[in-house]
Amino acid sequence: MPRLHFWYEFASTYSYLSAMRIEGCCRARGIDVIWHPFLLGPIFHAQGWETSPFNIYEAKGRYMWCDLERRAAAHGLPPVHRPDPFPQNGLLAARIATIGAEATWAPAFTRAVYSAQFATGACISDAEFLTCLLDSLDQDGPEIVHSAQTDPAVKDGLRKSTETAQSLGLFGAPSFTTDDGELFWGDDRLEEAMGWAARPKT
Amino acid sequence: MPRLHFWYEFASTYSYLSAMRIEGCCRARGIDVIWHPFLLGPIFHAQGWETSPFNIYEAKGRYMWCDLERRAAAHGLPPVHRPDPFPQNGLLAARIATIGAEATWAPAFTRAVYSAQFATGACISDAEFLTCLLDSLDQDGPEIVHSAQTDPAVKDGLRKSTETAQSLGLFGAPSFTTDDGELFWGDDRLEEAMGWAARPKT
Repeated sequence: MPRLHFWYEFASTYSYLSAMRIEGCCRARGIDVIWHPFLLGPIFHAQGWETSPFNIYEAKGRYMWCDLERRAAAHGLPPVHRPDPFPQNGLLAARIATIGAEATWAPAFTRAVYSAQFATGACISDAEFLTCLLDSLDQDGPEIVHSAQTDPAVKDGLRKSTETAQSLGLFGAPSFTTDDGELFWGDDRLEEAMGWAARPKT
Repeated sequence: MPRLHFWYEFASTYSYLSAMRIEGCCRARGIDVIWHPFLLGPIFHAQGWETSPFNIYEAKGRYMWCDLERRAAAHGLPPVHRPDPFPQNGLLAARIATIGAEATWAPAFTRAVYSAQFATGACISDAEFLTCLLDSLDQDGPEIVHSAQTDPAVKDGLRKSTETAQSLGLFGAPSFTTDDGELFWGDDRLEEAMGWAARPKT
């Protein structure tokens, strides 16, 4: 079965668009999605940015929120709730998703976090909120959050994911990579990425 | 007839993709294209950039050339010839296109300059090259190039176009704007921009 690697950062607005649709889109094309939470912070930091480029470059930021509204509507998503502050701190959520990627609940958890953030304005760095959210997915919220906060292997897993992202040439999110090393950046490249992943091998 | 404003910078790789297809795409949807050459340099300068962000941010630049190859192929364009140096100086070409926008030959001139730059690697700042190119379009090459180099009204026209772009919130190219003030950025938003321009007015 062809595979597509999905690289996402919880604070990333366009990652939200892809997270909400990638599983259905890929299933329809017979593609398996590998979910890779990672952190953009260290990658942005290496580029000299201490916050989102959408905050640094005002005109680009204004446009992004407008474009996100249009794209969310086109994807059938609810009106966008702009998080305040933006970007939110997605570290704890990303560590939890790192645990979930070893199990089967990473996709559902990821979608729930994004929905809460961009459709209702929840604070996704809040441990209590994430605990309740995990409970609602029939997971052991308190134990998973505790692991995410304290287990060195989890922290290490997320750090390695970010390092791998960087070594694959990623510079933003969402990104999609294929097993043969092709890179696609942005929700608007998801269709092209799926086409590449599923193309007949020569 | 609905109108779509097309804002392009000659050094911009993704503007090339749009310039080559916008007229056919819009004609098929009954939309009139208004061609607006402008300069990204002053806009980038205001953001603190002295060259293309694709040069400043290496990973992004590497990705762009790969993505451009894929998109050019998808659009049926020839293999991309990467200009050296990049970005090229598009000032003279943009002044000529400013003259052409008053006449009817701006689209043909624009496409010819982009093709020469990205399909064959021509130096688009060269006055002799641009003179020959205008001659090949049955225009008075020497006279137009002379005007572009010396006429204060032409310089002023391009400067005003860039100021208008900035006042409309443009931060990159290609961009598309509608008469009701909606902004779309990037070749991959052309379809959405056309849809907006041609939508039934409520």
